[in-house]
Amino acid sequence: MQSTDKRYLLLNLKGYAESFADSSLAIAGFAREVSIETGVNVVVCPPTPWLHHASSAGAAVYAQHTDPVEPGATTGYHSLEMLRSAGASGTLLNHSEHRLGLWEMEFLVERARKLGMKTVACADTIRTAAAVSTLGPDMVAIEPPELIGKGVSVSKARPEIITESVSAIRKVNAGITIIAGAGVTTADDVAKAVELGAEGALVASAVVKSDRQRNLIADMAEALLG
Amino acid sequence: MQSTDKRYLLLNLKGYAESFADSSLAIAGFAREVSIETGVNVVVCPPTPWLHHASSAGAAVYAQHTDPVEPGATTGYHSLEMLRSAGASGTLLNHSEHRLGLWEMEFLVERARKLGMKTVACADTIRTAAAVSTLGPDMVAIEPPELIGKGVSVSKARPEIITESVSAIRKVNAGITIIAGAGVTTADDVAKAVELGAEGALVASAVVKSDRQRNLIADMAEALLG
Amino acid sequence: MQSTDKRYLLLNLKGYAESFADSSLAIAGFAREVSIETGVNVVVCPPTPWLHHASSAGAAVYAQHTDPVEPGATTGYHSLEMLRSAGASGTLLNHSEHRLGLWEMEFLVERARKLGMKTVACADTIRTAAAVSTLGPDMVAIEPPELIGKGVSVSKARPEIITESVSAIRKVNAGITIIAGAGVTTADDVAKAVELGAEGALVASAVVKSDRQRNLIADMAEALLG
Amino acid sequence: MQSTDKRYLLLNLKGYAESFADSSLAIAGFAREVSIETGVNVVVCPPTPWLHHASSAGAAVYAQHTDPVEPGATTGYHSLEMLRSAGASGTLLNHSEHRLGLWEMEFLVERARKLGMKTVACADTIRTAAAVSTLGPDMVAIEPPELIGKGVSVSKARPEIITESVSAIRKVNAGITIIAGAGVTTADDVAKAVELGAEGALVASAVVKSDRQRNLIADMAEALLG
Repeated sequence: MQSTDKRYLLLNLKGYAESFADSSLAIAGFAREVSIETGVNVVVCPPTPWLHHASSAGAAVYAQHTDPVEPGATTGYHSLEMLRSAGASGTLLNHSEHRLGLWEMEFLVERARKLGMKTVACADTIRTAAAVSTLGPDMVAIEPPELIGKGVSVSKARPEIITESVSAIRKVNAGITIIAGAGVTTADDVAKAVELGAEGALVASAVVKSDRQRNLIADMAEALLG
Repeated sequence: MQSTDKRYLLLNLKGYAESFADSSLAIAGFAREVSIETGVNVVVCPPTPWLHHASSAGAAVYAQHTDPVEPGATTGYHSLEMLRSAGASGTLLNHSEHRLGLWEMEFLVERARKLGMKTVACADTIRTAAAVSTLGPDMVAIEPPELIGKGVSVSKARPEIITESVSAIRKVNAGITIIAGAGVTTADDVAKAVELGAEGALVASAVVKSDRQRNLIADMAEALLG
Repeated sequence: MQSTDKRYLLLNLKGYAESFADSSLAIAGFAREVSIETGVNVVVCPPTPWLHHASSAGAAVYAQHTDPVEPGATTGYHSLEMLRSAGASGTLLNHSEHRLGLWEMEFLVERARKLGMKTVACADTIRTAAAVSTLGPDMVAIEPPELIGKGVSVSKARPEIITESVSAIRKVNAGITIIAGAGVTTADDVAKAVELGAEGALVASAVVKSDRQRNLIADMAEALLG
Repeated sequence: MQSTDKRYLLLNLKGYAESFADSSLAIAGFAREVSIETGVNVVVCPPTPWLHHASSAGAAVYAQHTDPVEPGATTGYHSLEMLRSAGASGTLLNHSEHRLGLWEMEFLVERARKLGMKTVACADTIRTAAAVSTLGPDMVAIEPPELIGKGVSVSKARPEIITESVSAIRKVNAGITIIAGAGVTTADDVAKAVELGAEGALVASAVVKSDRQRNLIADMAEALLG
């Protein structure tokens, strides 16, 4: 078995009604158990109001988004410090549903590092994946938006996006953890992504809308171990 | 004593570090107690991660902002439904630190009404206060941005802004509750605003950074009763 | 014949390839001629690079959009002063394809008045049409976005939008000129809009893509005279 | 004398009142003359309404900004095709006064290449300069925003920004033309930037507000030749 230090299964619960309240907590509980069983870093990204509960349940918790602000008079915005105080140990950045400017990402990546928080920079093409990797985030998630929520895995439909992205990203940032996102719906998709060079997967509706969430999370985590 | 049905003391905890975690909960507890003692609607607007806790503490809770989205694939955004599920019974909209487009406000005001949630539309000039009032929110908060966080009360520094706004607003929306915001720091400021025609106050740093939060909230609530 | 002082035919050339260069100038020429013949204010809104040429051709010219900035270090933005210097005597604001915040519109409406420029505030619902009218622009254009570019006239498909808007707008601003926009494609559509209470029409693709532009402009102007 | 093929002097006229109308045309005339005399590519970026005139004067003309749209129903926006039709042979992108998202820049860089237009991607830190260079624009302009309009040259005040940027940029894009921006006010500043590895300069208020524009442009062009 490989070292699992860099194996990440990121569960983005988005804003689905199926993610509200107890549902976030249930998924957080499964994430915690599967992390312990497999050694894979299973991370939950719940809606902001349930960050604290999910974190209290013992799961690793990342925010879905962070605003490029500092604590202060920033009504309705969410700083890294605020989210960390609520239990987040990291954050997604620049998700295709919630973009950030390049200078905002640089601000957040640097500040997160100082605060001991992880950053996952999302990108949807080979070129932009390389571009965000130059900023030094901990992970980069490749997610072609045309595949998001379509039930078509990027690793199957367009495997060359992952292999070429891996190659382009490695040229500018050798140490970054590469995550396959968009359309990952089965453990098979995850296994295929690992073959292509990914070290983790970013999953959303497939888990949120599953009626066997715990099993699916466990199977995906196993698939990450190769 | 007047009817207190329309008397509102809105506490916007913003993104101050002093509002994180237990601090939000403490203020929520004070709000609940003062509401019961005075009959004034004391409402807390905590940072999003603590909406649920503050609501569980029995306080009336509004969100600081809501995004114009429906539940779904909206990573990092917050729908009315999400915030309601976390305990919010209303929301501030268009705070000067977090603007919304006119069409976004219309969407949110109408949807909130259907969901049974209250809306507080913020505006910073007489003309824009009248404009947002035509959309039919439950309350309009007048807050000239040049006074926010300055420790200078709008009701003292520029009383004509409140009286002229009240007049302009009443022409287009007779039933709306009018809230004085920006620079309200003392119970005296609140009393003066009531004299000028306001029916509530929106307070932020004065309460968040006070070392006698409970007393200040109680004094302000009393001042609203005239 | 009625006074034609307030009769406006606004031609929005948008960003169509058919509007580039000589095409803008040709339409500007037709606009000038029809204005002289009918007494209707026929106004051309060309793409920004051809404002100056269209104005030199003797047409009344408005900008399609203005940014809420003052002259200065504002790379790639367009102030009222800049557009006026290029020949614009007015501007569309808040077109459904190019929104503005409420506070931005207030800034632009007030500044335009000082500069002697006309403002046409666009809105797409009855409520938002009333809201923008409270800001005091010279004209308000009602254009439900679901009809734009569809070849279905707002005055025929949903006449109640115009009549109810006229009523709601008159309550808050008695003197404003009311323009029917979205889906106006024939002189008949214009005549119907006038019957419903409109004093002008905002037309785009119907004229831009017509192969008898001059005749169509002339017929629409005649229809405005009732 | 070195080959001057890659030597660029970019004149950003911004939105200054001093750039309106005849002023843009005068600078365009100087640019044309100095280009012919020195072989340096002297490029004028006038306000959008004067692109066509400046181009007619024989100067090389770039837009100050381009919106990420295609020709069509895009009221008040400016596509590459529109600006090219008005005479622009290139465009600045992501100026610190007018930001673009990463995905917008990718769209524009690729589309410009197909249209035969040049792109100058602006960036204000070493990391973001490297990031935008991975997208493949023709030039990258390094301009720390704290120096813009301050009369302090980046090449003198913070020479390490240029040398480190050159090094970081070359790692990800060997062929890109590197431009020094922000605070370049004299021919000496230009000469110093060339020493540090830059192949061009981006100048704004120093030229716009000079009372000896032609001489300054000529001196700066000479300085680029080393």
